[in-house]
Amino acid sequence: MKEVRILEIKQSVFADNDRQAQLLRQELREKKLFLLNLMSSPGSGKTTTLMRTIEALRDTLKIGVMEADIDSDVDARTISQSGVRVIQLHTGGMCHLDAEMTRQGLEGLDPAELDLVILENVGNLVCPAEFDTGATKNAMILSVPEGHDKPLKYPLMFSVCDVVLVNKIDVLPYFDFDLEKCREYVHRRNPRAKIIPICAKTGEGMKAWTDWLLQEVRGEGYGEKT
Amino acid sequence: MKEVRILEIKQSVFADNDRQAQLLRQELREKKLFLLNLMSSPGSGKTTTLMRTIEALRDTLKIGVMEADIDSDVDARTISQSGVRVIQLHTGGMCHLDAEMTRQGLEGLDPAELDLVILENVGNLVCPAEFDTGATKNAMILSVPEGHDKPLKYPLMFSVCDVVLVNKIDVLPYFDFDLEKCREYVHRRNPRAKIIPICAKTGEGMKAWTDWLLQEVRGEGYGEKT
Repeated sequence: MKEVRILEIKQSVFADNDRQAQLLRQELREKKLFLLNLMSSPGSGKTTTLMRTIEALRDTLKIGVMEADIDSDVDARTISQSGVRVIQLHTGGMCHLDAEMTRQGLEGLDPAELDLVILENVGNLVCPAEFDTGATKNAMILSVPEGHDKPLKYPLMFSVCDVVLVNKIDVLPYFDFDLEKCREYVHRRNPRAKIIPICAKTGEGMKAWTDWLLQEVRGEGYGEKT
Repeated sequence: MKEVRILEIKQSVFADNDRQAQLLRQELREKKLFLLNLMSSPGSGKTTTLMRTIEALRDTLKIGVMEADIDSDVDARTISQSGVRVIQLHTGGMCHLDAEMTRQGLEGLDPAELDLVILENVGNLVCPAEFDTGATKNAMILSVPEGHDKPLKYPLMFSVCDVVLVNKIDVLPYFDFDLEKCREYVHRRNPRAKIIPICAKTGEGMKAWTDWLLQEVRGEGYGEKT
């Protein structure tokens, strides 16, 4: 299997993360590099969704991936099979990435000619929501087995996301998951959040998601390097 | 519906959490009160497992429950239907409970005549593993839809647990979850961890779990108040 570069991220020295995040976002805009911050609980399907997203967009955009994990490089090795540039970020036990840590990751990835970098954040519905990474847009995945009540219990996560992917809709018949209630709870926290039901495993709904993402990338005037 | 008491937990003033946790554990031993710290990802089935556990043991042990959440009281309201004493702890955005926060919760619950208190920790595989709550034993739930690779990615959580409940085994046919690989990965992190496959929804495997818990409570010489 292809060798994956592993970067041990250092803890940030900056106290003012919001300022660092704004700076990074501005720099990315100038470089026409779109950074998507992808968050979710452990096991909601981030890596599978990412694989499908890469498949759909790799001929249109130059894509890179940063895999953030406490430990292991299983996800980065999976993503590396898709052929895109990938780097594994080890957070040294930290439960999230902030803007400075994201910047370290980007420097390790060397994204000069890339259009889109996707950051797969640490699997966690709490801490990643509290730290602006400097990403252009935030996406999160809520999977059907987790239940439709999660927006009530992790309000900040749903508040900071531009799009919520409801994943694993193929198993809807086997779980007490009410998609309408889910929509209502998400919009109670965040009326502007776009909600897209998908099944990354079968590909269902993935076009709506990749269309949205491509439109966002193009809309920001990025994605013109290819 | 029955009124649920909500306690807003204050941030701890103690720097040395390990010391506070040892003190609390010692006090609980003297009071013959068994404290179980139940951890997992969001949506893995902690509350349903808890409901089933209460049903099975309520005639044998006097049980109390502390529900820790960032926000909302949906879980505490569910648990209150079982008739046991329950308190909702709001962590004010904090992603975990430490020993002092657990102590605040216990004082709010008033557990004088209880045998067993179950703390449903914040849904998170990272931060709760880093803070000893002072609990007598730690349990965690890994649900089938999350995948069998989680012990590789969240090693600390699996290292600190005395028992791992593999929940939602009713949906094993619909997910790529390898129970043997899961066992191997858990034991790689923690050879002494007991692994019990369950389905809290249907009740399958729950007797093995409640037998283990009862044995632990009795074995510590607790549970003699009833």
